[in-house]
Amino acid sequence: MKHASNVDDSNTDSQAHAVWEKDKNHFIHPFTDFSTFHQQGCDIISDSDGIYVSDIKGNRFIDGIAGLWCVNVGHGRKEIGDAMAEQATRMAYFSTFNNLTNIPAAELSAKLASLAPAHLNHIFYTCGGSTANDVAVRLVHYYFNRIGKPEKKKIISRKNAYHGTTYMAATLTGIESNNWMFDTLDSHVSYLSEANCYRRPAGMSEAAYCDHLVGEFETRITELGADNIAAFIMEPIMGAGGVLVAPEGYHTRMQALCRQNDILLIVDEVVTAFGRLGHFFSSEKVFGLTPDIITCAKGLSSGYVPLGAALISDSLYEVLGTPQGKGGVLSTGFTYSGHPVSCAAALKNIEIMEREALCENIQRVGPYLETQLKTLKHHATVGDVRGSNFMMCLENVANKETGELLPLEARVGDRVAEEAQQRGLIIRPVGHLNIISPPLIWDEAIIDNVVAILDASFSAVTESLKKDGFM
Amino acid sequence: MKHASNVDDSNTDSQAHAVWEKDKNHFIHPFTDFSTFHQQGCDIISDSDGIYVSDIKGNRFIDGIAGLWCVNVGHGRKEIGDAMAEQATRMAYFSTFNNLTNIPAAELSAKLASLAPAHLNHIFYTCGGSTANDVAVRLVHYYFNRIGKPEKKKIISRKNAYHGTTYMAATLTGIESNNWMFDTLDSHVSYLSEANCYRRPAGMSEAAYCDHLVGEFETRITELGADNIAAFIMEPIMGAGGVLVAPEGYHTRMQALCRQNDILLIVDEVVTAFGRLGHFFSSEKVFGLTPDIITCAKGLSSGYVPLGAALISDSLYEVLGTPQGKGGVLSTGFTYSGHPVSCAAALKNIEIMEREALCENIQRVGPYLETQLKTLKHHATVGDVRGSNFMMCLENVANKETGELLPLEARVGDRVAEEAQQRGLIIRPVGHLNIISPPLIWDEAIIDNVVAILDASFSAVTESLKKDGFM
Repeated sequence: MKHASNVDDSNTDSQAHAVWEKDKNHFIHPFTDFSTFHQQGCDIISDSDGIYVSDIKGNRFIDGIAGLWCVNVGHGRKEIGDAMAEQATRMAYFSTFNNLTNIPAAELSAKLASLAPAHLNHIFYTCGGSTANDVAVRLVHYYFNRIGKPEKKKIISRKNAYHGTTYMAATLTGIESNNWMFDTLDSHVSYLSEANCYRRPAGMSEAAYCDHLVGEFETRITELGADNIAAFIMEPIMGAGGVLVAPEGYHTRMQALCRQNDILLIVDEVVTAFGRLGHFFSSEKVFGLTPDIITCAKGLSSGYVPLGAALISDSLYEVLGTPQGKGGVLSTGFTYSGHPVSCAAALKNIEIMEREALCENIQRVGPYLETQLKTLKHHATVGDVRGSNFMMCLENVANKETGELLPLEARVGDRVAEEAQQRGLIIRPVGHLNIISPPLIWDEAIIDNVVAILDASFSAVTESLKKDGFM
Repeated sequence: MKHASNVDDSNTDSQAHAVWEKDKNHFIHPFTDFSTFHQQGCDIISDSDGIYVSDIKGNRFIDGIAGLWCVNVGHGRKEIGDAMAEQATRMAYFSTFNNLTNIPAAELSAKLASLAPAHLNHIFYTCGGSTANDVAVRLVHYYFNRIGKPEKKKIISRKNAYHGTTYMAATLTGIESNNWMFDTLDSHVSYLSEANCYRRPAGMSEAAYCDHLVGEFETRITELGADNIAAFIMEPIMGAGGVLVAPEGYHTRMQALCRQNDILLIVDEVVTAFGRLGHFFSSEKVFGLTPDIITCAKGLSSGYVPLGAALISDSLYEVLGTPQGKGGVLSTGFTYSGHPVSCAAALKNIEIMEREALCENIQRVGPYLETQLKTLKHHATVGDVRGSNFMMCLENVANKETGELLPLEARVGDRVAEEAQQRGLIIRPVGHLNIISPPLIWDEAIIDNVVAILDASFSAVTESLKKDGFM
């Protein structure tokens, strides 16, 4: 899979080795596996183009994860780079504190308000999803302090939720292994069960499972007292926790409980916004939700530059925007809140999405991806294929009847990802899962190609698992 | 001060009004003063060039705050924009989780390790200062959990420290007004006094004041128990808290107490790094410190794009980089940790700083700025002129003998900033203070010009304060 290239191979190799060594010696990677990192170091992704990325040795891969759920418009968009360069040269940065602003931040704010549900008109910028969720909690607590309900503090999250890794965002995150040996701010958060249809109690119907989950929330509210609960935070479809699609009716019933108990609803759309489910925001259009806050990042800038945001409702803003006693200042925010270059990139990204009708593309080919991936269910290890549109997951198991898992040492998620990568496709292993979250520019032909690669990969994995005595 | 422009004025005005309105209706600014914002909205900074920024109406100003302590190489650097565009088009983003990397992140990591004190060789990337400090605390807690000292948890910070606004960073921040009506994680942090030579107890020598501050830390360690203290975090010169320069000997004596008590030292160099004090990092070269962690942001990319970092010592990394029992993964970090475009911008930024010898420029003209600003002490309101090199502050008072302050309603800091702005210079008002933190490209002639503007501004403020009955 070598690129056509006229670069001298030995030069490339020696540059690659130098970069590899610098990386290994100096860069602490997120979610690094040190048991292999110190020896093997990293693969260097150096180039990209549309649906492809290439490593420094010239091997080209179909990017099946959009960078990390984020390069929604695809790679190599020169016009986004140009928009960033133009803004950086014209006015790269000036403070947005207090009474100063810049054109791209103002324009993007109005644009986001026009794309979001009608009642979400006020934008608080951050540089990613973690800080969007972190500030959402901070503003919710501030809100209840301001309206004289300082006891309303507890945030309800869910097991296997992923909301980021600032100290507070990591606490909201309910994936146990993520916080192993890390501390969390336990007293601030209470975790409900995740909504996991595939692993719901044996013999329970989906409707009964929904009753069960809603009932758990109801009981939790009674236990904790509604007067002590500030907000419920949820991903509409859980992402890193395993692309878990909740049962029919779950979202609106959970929201109804929030409304009845004066509990604010924060919807974490870091993954589900900006087209992945076929709409700029999915809360209202897909799930019938009217959140008090939507947090987003990733697709907002298609990952071309760091940017996140919390979209705040009119009714919350009425309180947040009321001058305080002491000097009137809402004293929070970041140096880079409303960064001109980030906002310029996001504006261009949204322009591309609209011009190329990428949401409409997902509405068309999203169901096709779902259907085609489900054809892989005949493989011995594929226990479940789930998700929605361009947010999909395959769950590997030892026993399709019982859902029993293969032993950890089988590294089944890694095996599938490795086999796919050898065939020119990057997908993401998360434990025994494989996540597929493509750029929004895939069409039916590419999907056919990807599914053929996966078909061959799962066959190879079944063989290798047998060979190694795991099946 | 209008730009030469052939834009039709009425078009400009109507565009300006449209942007102004979008901003006012939709952008929640950091540290917004809502008592004026709802009516007046924001000034729109639209253009920039070298030491200047311009508003949308064509008024040009000398930028006396480098954006917000960050545009260290000055505005309008086309080559940084070009580097961003080139990287964005070549490979804008791919995951750096686990076993993947990109060239700019690897190159920048090695470069930062070469610029930092010799023992700091491992870089954890974030998107700004808040998250760099947040993750520093998270990693410190993780470190002590890993080495079997889980009781070592308390972070020692200082009153009037500024460390950002994630939930944890806002807790580290000791500026009381910043957290008014916000909650903080109080049990995690204990605050020492700030080191404020100007407002030290009357009659106390600077040496005795240093003894007093060090003694306070010693007592605090005894009270809390060294076994319960994880780290001491400090800005070497407090920034937003008022550019407070500690007394001679303070830094090394505080560090010695840390070492004696197995307390880690986190030095927040978000403002002081990247040339502002004449060196890439000031911890060691200016203050004689060998921190366990240095956090930085701002000047790292000259603010052209969001980027922050925590530089981790070899001995900490030895523990952080040891595979865990469960799968070996250091499970923290952000989607945008090691973002290719941000790292490419930082590399170009550092290249410019080296090529143009900007640290050396500060070593030469920094003392000149200090000296010339001190000539303003003859003004009735100027109680103190302090700081170091390109990190300076003027403290306004009612009474220079007693240091008594003018009433809040006098808005003296705002008055000075407004008078300066009318004369073509932006400086930052923080309460009764005025902060000056220029791009590193100022020379003696510009400094003379700036000091002349300030001289006229302070004269005007004295007049206006008298006229309004405050003096």
